[in-house]
Amino acid sequence: MIFTILDILGLIAFAISGTLAGIEKKLDFFGVFVIAMVTSIGGGTLRDLLIGNTPVFWLLNLQTFYIVTATTILSVVFRHRLSFLRTSLFLFDTIGIGIFTIIGIEQGLMIELSPIVCILLGTVTACFGGVARDILCNEIPVIFRKEIYATACLTGGFMFFALDFLKVNNDIIYVATAGTIILIRIFAVRNKWSFPQIEIK
Amino acid sequence: MIFTILDILGLIAFAISGTLAGIEKKLDFFGVFVIAMVTSIGGGTLRDLLIGNTPVFWLLNLQTFYIVTATTILSVVFRHRLSFLRTSLFLFDTIGIGIFTIIGIEQGLMIELSPIVCILLGTVTACFGGVARDILCNEIPVIFRKEIYATACLTGGFMFFALDFLKVNNDIIYVATAGTIILIRIFAVRNKWSFPQIEIK
Amino acid sequence: MIFTILDILGLIAFAISGTLAGIEKKLDFFGVFVIAMVTSIGGGTLRDLLIGNTPVFWLLNLQTFYIVTATTILSVVFRHRLSFLRTSLFLFDTIGIGIFTIIGIEQGLMIELSPIVCILLGTVTACFGGVARDILCNEIPVIFRKEIYATACLTGGFMFFALDFLKVNNDIIYVATAGTIILIRIFAVRNKWSFPQIEIK
Repeated sequence: MIFTILDILGLIAFAISGTLAGIEKKLDFFGVFVIAMVTSIGGGTLRDLLIGNTPVFWLLNLQTFYIVTATTILSVVFRHRLSFLRTSLFLFDTIGIGIFTIIGIEQGLMIELSPIVCILLGTVTACFGGVARDILCNEIPVIFRKEIYATACLTGGFMFFALDFLKVNNDIIYVATAGTIILIRIFAVRNKWSFPQIEIK
Repeated sequence: MIFTILDILGLIAFAISGTLAGIEKKLDFFGVFVIAMVTSIGGGTLRDLLIGNTPVFWLLNLQTFYIVTATTILSVVFRHRLSFLRTSLFLFDTIGIGIFTIIGIEQGLMIELSPIVCILLGTVTACFGGVARDILCNEIPVIFRKEIYATACLTGGFMFFALDFLKVNNDIIYVATAGTIILIRIFAVRNKWSFPQIEIK
Repeated sequence: MIFTILDILGLIAFAISGTLAGIEKKLDFFGVFVIAMVTSIGGGTLRDLLIGNTPVFWLLNLQTFYIVTATTILSVVFRHRLSFLRTSLFLFDTIGIGIFTIIGIEQGLMIELSPIVCILLGTVTACFGGVARDILCNEIPVIFRKEIYATACLTGGFMFFALDFLKVNNDIIYVATAGTIILIRIFAVRNKWSFPQIEIK
């Protein structure tokens, strides 16, 4: 149940971030819709392919299509409010990775993968939508900008299994994991945290 | 039977479009061959992966390999005639998406996906080869240029199910669907139809 | 047994080449790690997806993760020695494609694909990691540079089946195939061999 709600929230967050990216690129409505679609279903699609969960999730029912379509239309209509917050794209993208990391980990656990592999799968699920969006928009993929991005997902993943090991209640694990990822990324960007680049000399 | 012929025609159309794109990028023969291959099998490969139809189609027999190889060689040999028609790349790409949309829809129906999902699958099948070609060639993906591209496929898809609902003969459905897609795109480009970009302010 | 050793050597070679590419792009440690990971598992992942061998190899045990992580850390620590050899990236990439072509062919044989298709699968396995690395780093994909790249893999693949037809011992086939690929590429780059680009006029 909470899983389904998470899924929907993640799709909405990424659809908004995709819509805003498409508008910024001055695409027409269908271009914006394609970017919103790729951003929200990209990570889950790669996850399903990697674990062999086919037909992939969005082929099996129309829910995903309706959610992304409705979110895109609403985001386009209310784009002025969203762009007022200059950090909207950033915020929704961050909420999206927080949620999708959890979903990826849960899917990995379902087929009994080991914890570290689950964390990798969660990170891939979270990051790939944004990476595909950036490749299509011809931007430097977000994971390579001077931001803590994949690292936030990995850290959240370790939090997940630490709490799981302590037998904490599932709902709390979810909130703590997503919260960790979202807070790390927000603090990292606000305080310009970054890892040093590797000097060649 | 008509299905197999469609498949072959689609492969040929996309192989020609890929060859012309590779020649334009001044690649050597193997580079051109790689682009032709990716363009013609890209969409069908993604479709097979998404629905879990593996090993994907071109691994199971040599037909695809022979068709694309022969088409590439012939297109290279007769490139002057093809480039005489300055719109060759455009035309073959358009024929390709018309045909591949139908094939994608049929594959979706075979595993009993719902009509809207079949239309999405058809559109993905039709568009992904061209998108992969453009990403490899470092061009703006064709779906985002100021052209009616994915939209033509979606419209053709709705035509398919409208005629199917009216219990029209299959061959007529195929011709009408591909015809709709091809005509919409040709008229759109000739008359510079486009959707307005979304204004931020 | 030799197969497992080959697998490990291939992962290490590509992880080093990915690490060097990431350092050259002035990424931070996690960016470098992501590039190393994508480069070393990219080809095998696409191969597993295409033949329907899911969950893909690196999800099933932690070996891949440990090998790539250790290689990346060691390559970063010893980067000065590696960059002293200006051709390091090139060399490790070349060793990687030599090994991965063999692995791809073997995987194809295991599910009884025909020889030509096996050679294509081997070439895809060998080349995709480097192509994904280059797309993420926003470079012209290595297969399209004026180098003999995919062609070396294809030639090695034909060597594989020629020797197999002659019933040569497996270990010799492996050494001869990888050797052919590596030597062709090294000679091609050293002597600036290239295929002529296709003239439009």
